[in-house]
Amino acid sequence: MNRIISTAISIICILSGATAAGVSAAPAVEQWKIFELSFRQKAGQHPFDNIDSRCTFINGCDTVKVSAFYDGNDTYKIRFMPHKPGRWTYRTSGNNPKSNLRGSFDCLPASPGNHGPVRVDSLGFAYSDGTAYIPVGTTCYAWTHQPDSLIQLTLETLRNSCFNKIRMCIFPKSYDWNRNEPILYPFEGETGNWDFNRLNPAYFRNIEQCIASLDSLGIEADLIVYHPYDRWGFSKLDKETRDRYMQYVISRFGAFKNVWWSMANEYDFMEAYDTADWQHHLRFFALNDPYGHLRGIHNGVKLYDQNDPYVTHVSIQSSDMANAGNLRSQYRKPVIYDECRYEGNIPWVWGTLSAEEMVQKFWEGFTRGAFVGHGEVILTQPEVGPDRSDEILWWSKGGVLRGKSHDRIRYLKQILADAPSARLTPVEGITGWQNYPTLGAGDDWYLIYFGRDIHCQLLLELPEDKTYRIELIDTWGMTSTVLDGTFSGHSLITLPQLPYMAARLTAVPR
Amino acid sequence: MNRIISTAISIICILSGATAAGVSAAPAVEQWKIFELSFRQKAGQHPFDNIDSRCTFINGCDTVKVSAFYDGNDTYKIRFMPHKPGRWTYRTSGNNPKSNLRGSFDCLPASPGNHGPVRVDSLGFAYSDGTAYIPVGTTCYAWTHQPDSLIQLTLETLRNSCFNKIRMCIFPKSYDWNRNEPILYPFEGETGNWDFNRLNPAYFRNIEQCIASLDSLGIEADLIVYHPYDRWGFSKLDKETRDRYMQYVISRFGAFKNVWWSMANEYDFMEAYDTADWQHHLRFFALNDPYGHLRGIHNGVKLYDQNDPYVTHVSIQSSDMANAGNLRSQYRKPVIYDECRYEGNIPWVWGTLSAEEMVQKFWEGFTRGAFVGHGEVILTQPEVGPDRSDEILWWSKGGVLRGKSHDRIRYLKQILADAPSARLTPVEGITGWQNYPTLGAGDDWYLIYFGRDIHCQLLLELPEDKTYRIELIDTWGMTSTVLDGTFSGHSLITLPQLPYMAARLTAVPR
Repeated sequence: MNRIISTAISIICILSGATAAGVSAAPAVEQWKIFELSFRQKAGQHPFDNIDSRCTFINGCDTVKVSAFYDGNDTYKIRFMPHKPGRWTYRTSGNNPKSNLRGSFDCLPASPGNHGPVRVDSLGFAYSDGTAYIPVGTTCYAWTHQPDSLIQLTLETLRNSCFNKIRMCIFPKSYDWNRNEPILYPFEGETGNWDFNRLNPAYFRNIEQCIASLDSLGIEADLIVYHPYDRWGFSKLDKETRDRYMQYVISRFGAFKNVWWSMANEYDFMEAYDTADWQHHLRFFALNDPYGHLRGIHNGVKLYDQNDPYVTHVSIQSSDMANAGNLRSQYRKPVIYDECRYEGNIPWVWGTLSAEEMVQKFWEGFTRGAFVGHGEVILTQPEVGPDRSDEILWWSKGGVLRGKSHDRIRYLKQILADAPSARLTPVEGITGWQNYPTLGAGDDWYLIYFGRDIHCQLLLELPEDKTYRIELIDTWGMTSTVLDGTFSGHSLITLPQLPYMAARLTAVPR
Repeated sequence: MNRIISTAISIICILSGATAAGVSAAPAVEQWKIFELSFRQKAGQHPFDNIDSRCTFINGCDTVKVSAFYDGNDTYKIRFMPHKPGRWTYRTSGNNPKSNLRGSFDCLPASPGNHGPVRVDSLGFAYSDGTAYIPVGTTCYAWTHQPDSLIQLTLETLRNSCFNKIRMCIFPKSYDWNRNEPILYPFEGETGNWDFNRLNPAYFRNIEQCIASLDSLGIEADLIVYHPYDRWGFSKLDKETRDRYMQYVISRFGAFKNVWWSMANEYDFMEAYDTADWQHHLRFFALNDPYGHLRGIHNGVKLYDQNDPYVTHVSIQSSDMANAGNLRSQYRKPVIYDECRYEGNIPWVWGTLSAEEMVQKFWEGFTRGAFVGHGEVILTQPEVGPDRSDEILWWSKGGVLRGKSHDRIRYLKQILADAPSARLTPVEGITGWQNYPTLGAGDDWYLIYFGRDIHCQLLLELPEDKTYRIELIDTWGMTSTVLDGTFSGHSLITLPQLPYMAARLTAVPR
């Protein structure tokens, strides 16, 4: 048993701006923000092992139990995200480390803009307070492992972007254009000689600062727990190391309301882990994360069994947007095409979408009732081969957006946000048997996408008992044109003979 | 038994230019052209029924037996396409009509440009003389049922086009933009009161003249035996009528070397016929056509079982060009995407491809080892609705080509014709794991297609023991640019960052 070397327990309410010291202090913490206990105790040889220290938080009939984690420098921390306002009391238990802390704090109602964690809502998503959340994500796998100046640039780009979710790896990435070493490593030691018993708190502290920054921008952090692009050995950890790592990630990051757990980028490309391992990983997060953050598992070529009860939403790599309806029907879970290929010009097929085609995939995916993720790999120095170049590409290192799709994605996002209801579902029959992808808000609003097709006219089969105003939307040009008149029932509309057109139909008083 | 009312038997060698009269005359007929016997005999009430008159043609150990058909005006005909040069003797048999003709004629070797009927050659096609045939087809379903001036215009357009196959219906077509009545009808009588026992020889004579005209242009006539777009009752014939009709078509058209038998356009949209009917139709042609012309059956949404032993090649409606390899592997027959949607601007989804996308489908299909068919539905008067318009659209009535894809298809056809071998097969690995569709002529020549993808560079994995010259092809711009230098083995090439690019690799001496 470790000796408590400091009786000065600090209670830090990070993100809420309030800090306090002293065990009896009870600073107010905002709902869905973080209450943190920190205490010092002389750490032994294996401070990450066998931690059994828990803290139980109680508010009325709600009880939440969270685990302590070691933050280095003989300091342990306990983090808690209160999910409802009111007085929470807490008490620690366990022997490693033994703290015997107890106290209470007040949780204040969420302030405007704080909607809590994202949850599954039917085949879509919503924040915990019921506010609609439509994921419009991007991808910067290794942005947290870059120099701070680049991290800040990435955050600035994100601040000005439309994206509200980002896929990012916890472990560093080794791949073409990713030859540089990370600033920090997740374990103590060095390549070839890692001490997998000793996680590096500074490494995780850096990531959590990034998570907090994302939260301040309203961006969900879709944390990728494992991935195959590795030259250090972090893609083939033994089970004990993985369990220790996963518990650490949960204890440390779980109290951030904007965290999602993505078991993997391309789970099927990781040779060291088999299906039983992935089932274990999913179950581990499901059972040990007290907040029930969203859980997905992203594939390379072979879709993971999305019927797994611990998978909350279908996170896939696929460019077959036409399959969205099947996936929705088959799994009855929200479907996110987290990777449908990226806008880019690189030698690899996954990063060769023209901006037009990236936007096309967004529109087709969304109008089929799925969600789509963005990525960008636009080389400016192609003369350097991928095996030698360390060019900063958004998809991994972050930096700046160079492409032309993200502005169009913003335009789409605004159109979805302007819908009269957040519960948008695919609708059949508005274009008759032709069944162009159509999203509906009941029968008050429809969004139809025509993809690459060229029409001079189109027949619509609208509800007879409603009247609609129709706007033609140039999804590439980001313009809309209102058609003369109103429409009801069997309606022949005239379209410009251009690809990438859509139509927005809004019910109007008769 | 009918009385022979004319002893003046005429022997007409149509298409060969030679005509003669008198039973003992033996005019020379060119190989794969038509030897025709014609004799008059008073026809009874049912001249199309129970014809058992056959004519047996013998040349050495080759024996071919063909059926007579009634051509109206108390005239019966026997047509024969000799498949090898030399002296053919013949003798009729049967009692209805009874003719007792015998004689002989000389068959001359085919003249230049006459290559005989097209046959299956592995997973492709070749003419009977071994000359390569790469089908580059188009579609004019009802062109033979239009006024003669329009028929002549269609032929003139075809003469100047690149197409060497045309899909065309034997029965007239009723559909949007096809409201006009055909010039002739296939049966005697009138709508609601057809005498299905009595075919109309003039109707079939008109079609055969069109077939002959196509042959003179080097175009294969892919004759569609049944189709669902009907307002006259020709899509729901009883079995007896169908058998009579099919035998008539075989006896009358089968001697034309450029005939293919397509059992249906969209067999699965024909409610009157079930699977057993379609099996019967295929078998009927297989057993009764003495020449073994190619047989296919085109689907609406449900692919016919292409394992049917009487199906010679996979003729499909599908826009999923990426599936070409699977179809080749699954059926081990040549695959023709006879309908992959059409270039056009109409209200119906099947005719809304931009020219770029029509060309894209050709390139993807061909480079995946399949063949692709063209069609065009470009409205110039869209203000008239499809249910009232009778605008002349190429896909059905013929006329003129208005689109921009056909010139690009010609360009592709020329590239394929310029390959050092006619035996072009899909090849894997030239673009490494990325596996862009690649057609190869052994390892002497490769054609790689990049579709809509944008590349600044691409890695090729070429044979180490060969050296290649590389041309970048802009499939839309119809230009090619030779890359500096030569390439062998692992080669990084630079591409313009444009969609619709291809690369042609030609082995050069080291």
